Amino acid sequence: MLYSKLFGKAKKAGKVYNSVNATLLQKGGFIDQVMAGTYTYLTLGTKVLNKIENIVREEMDNIGCEVIMPSLTPFENWNTTGRLETVDILMKTTPANVFAKAKNDTEYVLNPTHEEVVTPLAQKFVTSYKDFPFALYQIQTKFRNEPRVKSGLLRGREFRMKDLYSFHTSVEDLKSYYEESKKVYLKIFERLGIGADTVIALASGGSFTSDYSHEFQTICETGEDTLFLDKSTNTYFNKEVAPSKAPKIKDNDLKMKDREDVEGKGIVGVTELAEFLKIPVEKTTKTLIYETDDGRIIAAAVRGGYDVNEDKLRKVVGCKAIKLATPEMVEKATGAKVGYAGILNLKKEVEVYYDESLEDRLNFETGANKTNFHSINVNFGRDIPMPNKFYDIKVAKKGDLNPETGLEYEVFKASEVGNIFPLYTKFAEAFGYKFVDRDGQEKPIYMGCYGIGTSRIMGIIVEKYHDDRGIIWPKEVAPYQVHLIGLDLKDESIRQKAHDLYETLMKRKIEVLFDDREDASAGEKFGDCDIIGIPVRLVISKRTGDKIEYKKRSSADTKLISADEIPNLL
Amino acid sequence: MLYSKLFGKAKKAGKVYNSVNATLLQKGGFIDQVMAGTYTYLTLGTKVLNKIENIVREEMDNIGCEVIMPSLTPFENWNTTGRLETVDILMKTTPANVFAKAKNDTEYVLNPTHEEVVTPLAQKFVTSYKDFPFALYQIQTKFRNEPRVKSGLLRGREFRMKDLYSFHTSVEDLKSYYEESKKVYLKIFERLGIGADTVIALASGGSFTSDYSHEFQTICETGEDTLFLDKSTNTYFNKEVAPSKAPKIKDNDLKMKDREDVEGKGIVGVTELAEFLKIPVEKTTKTLIYETDDGRIIAAAVRGGYDVNEDKLRKVVGCKAIKLATPEMVEKATGAKVGYAGILNLKKEVEVYYDESLEDRLNFETGANKTNFHSINVNFGRDIPMPNKFYDIKVAKKGDLNPETGLEYEVFKASEVGNIFPLYTKFAEAFGYKFVDRDGQEKPIYMGCYGIGTSRIMGIIVEKYHDDRGIIWPKEVAPYQVHLIGLDLKDESIRQKAHDLYETLMKRKIEVLFDDREDASAGEKFGDCDIIGIPVRLVISKRTGDKIEYKKRSSADTKLISADEIPNLL
Repeated sequence: MLYSKLFGKAKKAGKVYNSVNATLLQKGGFIDQVMAGTYTYLTLGTKVLNKIENIVREEMDNIGCEVIMPSLTPFENWNTTGRLETVDILMKTTPANVFAKAKNDTEYVLNPTHEEVVTPLAQKFVTSYKDFPFALYQIQTKFRNEPRVKSGLLRGREFRMKDLYSFHTSVEDLKSYYEESKKVYLKIFERLGIGADTVIALASGGSFTSDYSHEFQTICETGEDTLFLDKSTNTYFNKEVAPSKAPKIKDNDLKMKDREDVEGKGIVGVTELAEFLKIPVEKTTKTLIYETDDGRIIAAAVRGGYDVNEDKLRKVVGCKAIKLATPEMVEKATGAKVGYAGILNLKKEVEVYYDESLEDRLNFETGANKTNFHSINVNFGRDIPMPNKFYDIKVAKKGDLNPETGLEYEVFKASEVGNIFPLYTKFAEAFGYKFVDRDGQEKPIYMGCYGIGTSRIMGIIVEKYHDDRGIIWPKEVAPYQVHLIGLDLKDESIRQKAHDLYETLMKRKIEVLFDDREDASAGEKFGDCDIIGIPVRLVISKRTGDKIEYKKRSSADTKLISADEIPNLL
Repeated sequence: MLYSKLFGKAKKAGKVYNSVNATLLQKGGFIDQVMAGTYTYLTLGTKVLNKIENIVREEMDNIGCEVIMPSLTPFENWNTTGRLETVDILMKTTPANVFAKAKNDTEYVLNPTHEEVVTPLAQKFVTSYKDFPFALYQIQTKFRNEPRVKSGLLRGREFRMKDLYSFHTSVEDLKSYYEESKKVYLKIFERLGIGADTVIALASGGSFTSDYSHEFQTICETGEDTLFLDKSTNTYFNKEVAPSKAPKIKDNDLKMKDREDVEGKGIVGVTELAEFLKIPVEKTTKTLIYETDDGRIIAAAVRGGYDVNEDKLRKVVGCKAIKLATPEMVEKATGAKVGYAGILNLKKEVEVYYDESLEDRLNFETGANKTNFHSINVNFGRDIPMPNKFYDIKVAKKGDLNPETGLEYEVFKASEVGNIFPLYTKFAEAFGYKFVDRDGQEKPIYMGCYGIGTSRIMGIIVEKYHDDRGIIWPKEVAPYQVHLIGLDLKDESIRQKAHDLYETLMKRKIEVLFDDREDASAGEKFGDCDIIGIPVRLVISKRTGDKIEYKKRSSADTKLISADEIPNLL
């Protein structure tokens, strides 16, 4: 490709966005923002995206059949699973004006995911035990009604994704395929150049199972996820599910003091409260009041400095859905205004769940359940009956221990590049999809789903591989392998030499971007080259004589080489 | 690919749809209808679509840069061109439920075409004369709010398309690129296996130019378009724009008869009327009353048996838009109820346009502009002043002559596979996109757009290439080159031979679909093979001995060959 003919050239002085990938991909001429969360992939970006998707496709072909499902789907499909009215990123289409409305007034769902399409599709074609297991995948554009989108390609209203769905006649078969898919995923990330830093983390399995799902996370300073690693078992947990044991607090108290109610009007945050009471934050208690879908009132208490993990709480409580109680409800349950809830003197009908971080404290604080008042020097066994059980209902944080091994977690920032999810019978059941077994009986079908955000990966690679001058593409996904720069091109013999080398490389099927501009300065060309980030730079100029200057994007060293050496150096 | 592992096998007894392509593509396991006009491409269909799109991409790369523009666009872009409120196939997105609405209530346009995206995109990157001309293209999914969709892949609510947009600093440069694009398009259709039957036809240039656009039409019995060919100039016209001269009518009348008003209550269609009056249809006159956007009332008259071509009429009248008058307006203009309008005694304010088919008739009929009455034996020069001018304002029909050459057209059915369209300054002007010339002055930019419906082409190929047993794919787009059938596979040695051949073909990079089913009958396998339509069938069975039976899908002949001969026979 001649750089002079490339649409969307690098812009050294391009705008700086909220995220590294949005800034560098736009400076480099890979993407262009149409609106927040929606981009045009320019020619260089299209090349990178195609490379990523081709690698994904090659590996997926080993474990599934490629299809392309539509983006538009009748409401009926989404009504069947009950998700039409509940999924908060779901969009639908509607005619844009009165003429369109007169022509066809039907509305359609614009799919953000395809369980609602793939399940009835599979049902139409495969019902005999003989044809199981099987898996279908597609690589296509997905749509999500995202509110604030500031992370470039990491989160979009419209993005590219590979989604695969597998179908099985038993849980065992699902599990075996699921394990196989992990290997294939790791191979894909290896081929994409991010294998060394990509790990499998346990994540939430959703509301219909107590199982984990699995996320493929690339360790990256700017990642939006937090991982907790137990080194002894080499297990990574996403923060949202990491089991946690709070480290013991340092306490100088040796015996119980007299309980006291302290007036502290308007003091509700634990940091502010600890300062006001002149006690460590660890001695405060955070109590939140929840309602469950089955009508129970719940108090959840964690040590000051922690947050309640609602997913953990919901599982412990044993209900389908949980939400913070309204101020009226809080008042009714505690007898006080919001902000003064505590574990002391709660109404009988309130079920209390104590986090394990509350254990082993002497003389702690808790809301007094009396407007404006906090109780201090509270103790279990004296002021509050010793709880029968302490739970883990908190969000893990740095410094926490894995309760199973007792070891302190290592904590990493990371970005999700893929996830796999055991769906079990959830969708097959909703559509009444069963298989006919050897014995002629209809039996349940188990499904899994397996996603990779291909455009997202493009963003993550940039977040991970760049320096202050621009992107540094792994060669597997680089738009070209060689960035050839011609300098002093107004000199006929040098121009000829540069164009000859370009032709030679093309003939050898080496992917090359040739900066053939005659009116751009050397500084401009080198700058653009660094922003774009192609793995190898070659320079031909007056200075290089019969040789060619060779430099890797990832290194500062240059050397003079002959044309014959090029293939070996790529 | 092992046929036993293929998702979406052929269904000989599959449903019959309104169109050949919908029926055969679904029987063959290429597509599956999700709703009218919206399909899943199954694995075989995805392969065919990819082959078509790769051919298109390879040729487009010679004349443009690939990009991928988003499907979602802010309203603003479409407001700029005024098309948000007028394009009747335009859809928008809106949150699908209350939770989605709470999250993000913004609506977006779902693009059916990308002039509104590509123009501001180009404007952001290219303004200097030095960087012109250039062209951008993409291959992606488009969305159209179609009301009734019954033609399989020929017309969909969601379909695949290649669209290219070119940008120029002069009309001459646009024209030169435009001519070049025709050659590239013809090469693409050649490579797709439909070159021999694909022609360029003149079509409407839209409301903003008197120029033609150009359609690439594949001659095909089931085609939904009609082409008129003037053999002497080898020019094809789409019916919608074909200039037409009506053949002279055979008339036994030699002199004028007395005019007469005949009562014929409720008789309004020309065929019914001619029968009632006992005159040839050619002696009746069809008069329609129109309103123009600039407030004029128009009467358009054509010979019985013809229809008014509103596009031709609009150009002759010299206005931007035209529509049939309301019944009230008709009554006001003619003094009679709808159905009795004629060219006699019209109100002064009505402008009358006479089609040339009305010339040279003696004693013709016309509506009397009097409710329930028709006038017969009407004559120009006696009952109606001889018109100053006759126009061509009718829809051409079989038997018509080309007015320029006087030759009778040949008429063909055809299906559109591509179109190219000179946009001139329409979109660049709307966005205020100008280029800076050598002299520092801002000057207008000329654009062209160039479309190919890639999924539509898949449908058209099937409409064209099939027999009563199934599809017959041209090899360039066939999902596989070889359909290998193993019979008698329960015999260990035959099974081994068949699997060995399959492996050998795979190693030689020959695309092969291997029907390895052990429980399917020979009849079933041959039937599926014919429906699917892969160019070459190979059979291994007890009967074939050391040889392999070879048969082309397009022929009934079989022969026994050795494995070594296969590559040469593909």
